[in-house]
Amino acid sequence: MKVLITGGAGFLGQRLARELLARGEVKGVGGQPQRITELVLLDVMAATGFTDSRVRAEVGDIAERSVLERVIDTQTSAIFHLAAIVSGQAEADFDLGMRINLDASRLLLETCRIRGHRPRVVFTSSVAVYGGDMPDVVRNDTALNPQSSYGTQKAIAELLLNDYTRRGFVDGRVLRLPTISVRPGKPNAATSSFASAIVREPLNGETAICPVPGSTRLWLLSPRRAIACLIAGLELDGAALGKQRALNLPGISVTVDEMVDALREVAGEAAVKRILWQPDAFLEKIVGSWPGRWDTTRAEQLGLKGEASFADVIRSYIEDEHLRPV
Amino acid sequence: MKVLITGGAGFLGQRLARELLARGEVKGVGGQPQRITELVLLDVMAATGFTDSRVRAEVGDIAERSVLERVIDTQTSAIFHLAAIVSGQAEADFDLGMRINLDASRLLLETCRIRGHRPRVVFTSSVAVYGGDMPDVVRNDTALNPQSSYGTQKAIAELLLNDYTRRGFVDGRVLRLPTISVRPGKPNAATSSFASAIVREPLNGETAICPVPGSTRLWLLSPRRAIACLIAGLELDGAALGKQRALNLPGISVTVDEMVDALREVAGEAAVKRILWQPDAFLEKIVGSWPGRWDTTRAEQLGLKGEASFADVIRSYIEDEHLRPV
Repeated sequence: MKVLITGGAGFLGQRLARELLARGEVKGVGGQPQRITELVLLDVMAATGFTDSRVRAEVGDIAERSVLERVIDTQTSAIFHLAAIVSGQAEADFDLGMRINLDASRLLLETCRIRGHRPRVVFTSSVAVYGGDMPDVVRNDTALNPQSSYGTQKAIAELLLNDYTRRGFVDGRVLRLPTISVRPGKPNAATSSFASAIVREPLNGETAICPVPGSTRLWLLSPRRAIACLIAGLELDGAALGKQRALNLPGISVTVDEMVDALREVAGEAAVKRILWQPDAFLEKIVGSWPGRWDTTRAEQLGLKGEASFADVIRSYIEDEHLRPV
Repeated sequence: MKVLITGGAGFLGQRLARELLARGEVKGVGGQPQRITELVLLDVMAATGFTDSRVRAEVGDIAERSVLERVIDTQTSAIFHLAAIVSGQAEADFDLGMRINLDASRLLLETCRIRGHRPRVVFTSSVAVYGGDMPDVVRNDTALNPQSSYGTQKAIAELLLNDYTRRGFVDGRVLRLPTISVRPGKPNAATSSFASAIVREPLNGETAICPVPGSTRLWLLSPRRAIACLIAGLELDGAALGKQRALNLPGISVTVDEMVDALREVAGEAAVKRILWQPDAFLEKIVGSWPGRWDTTRAEQLGLKGEASFADVIRSYIEDEHLRPV
């Protein structure tokens, strides 16, 4: 089978690719293992660092029909659609967000429909589809009420994926990701960027800015568990998902203060002192509109798991990134 | 002020136009009455039967940018966006439904954004945005879970309207219409067409087919009250709507059996005998996925009202259509 990862040069895409290559196969229809013969990584820049002969790095604009036609054929039976314009950028550049988060997602589904082979499509959605007046614990069936253009575009793509699935054009599954933390690398334009920076930078001996109050509650998942959930989401039997293809992934509900406590537990007070508190009203408003906790009964029933504590998340980050133990 | 009605040659569009012309003004910002100087009726065929000099009938494809640019200028401060491909047709012709129900709605919002004058936009949505596992009484904040392409397209347009409103491109309001009954005229391709036919045809001495069981519960509103709600929806102060611009309009929750009882009450047993019961699994499935009752506290708090009984609905139909009293 061929596997396509859009956003394949991104952080999650690359990590997912490595995990898929290591496994060599994924479960398909009927739970039967299928060998991965080709792994296509599509992105606006070439995915680098892969020497595996199964990898095909493709560079192109995902909102172009010809690009999608080049990377999806009738052998492409698994698609991870991760490509997106992140929240802060989609808010700053409305047209770009609409083009990538909405138009490209639709075009991807449409390309599958034209091919006619009904691939499994895993689409990553976000906490940002929720907002406004919410229950304390968001349920899988809480109404979507995004308060950002990013959340709106993700919610629309969810609806499209549901309908394309209902009509038999694809076998879709939506995984609503918690905020991913701790991301390695540099800060990005996501409004949640600080949720990694306030751990990552202090561990590297650098200062980090926290733009939201310590009482802000976040719903987090580590990269390691996110990748495991993405693959488990692909392997799910579509029938088990039924009419509602969206799953709220498990996570940990923590306040920023609790994240700081976990950092102190793992890396000591010196690390904590590297966090500078500089409120940013814009970020605070958007981040504050997201749910801080959600009910994950459905995901857990389907076998998807998160972490036990944020200190565990920090430890797995140190391990995955081969940092010097603190 | 200029007013635009898309779908202006349709049944609701024409009736709305007549009511607006009769009123001569609508309340705008600050509740101030504004005189209607031009009423543009856009549709794929010319709206006929209007001799009023304020009326401008425009023929065009609403999914064409040039058409929308012709009918929306900076004086167009009120837009009723009623144009749509009905449910049965959107299910039968996926591409057409996507083009008109989604692409044209987006293009309309985009044209307003480019004009930059932030008009009030009333968008009619539908019971069909709900589906799947629902509470007995659907609330304004029950999750949208459409089980048809029509419902999906309406739900997506709702999300777009919310975001365009949040960003200040338009001042939008979504009115989720119950099934409109009794519609005059002929049956159409809506999956709910029977909900008018089983009253209208018997009153005209003709037979009508009922494709769903008598136990099917529907959520209905008369054309007369629907028009009143559309205008009230336009006149609402945007601030009263806040972040969630969608309103579930009031209606009556009745089973098909109760509709038949009301018909008997108003027009006698002879009329009831003209209903032929011919189950249609396709229609039953789609109609059965809609909510039969919803909580309308929010709409009522904002002053929008429905009827007291379905017998009243039938009587108002007889009056509005100038039928011979039975």
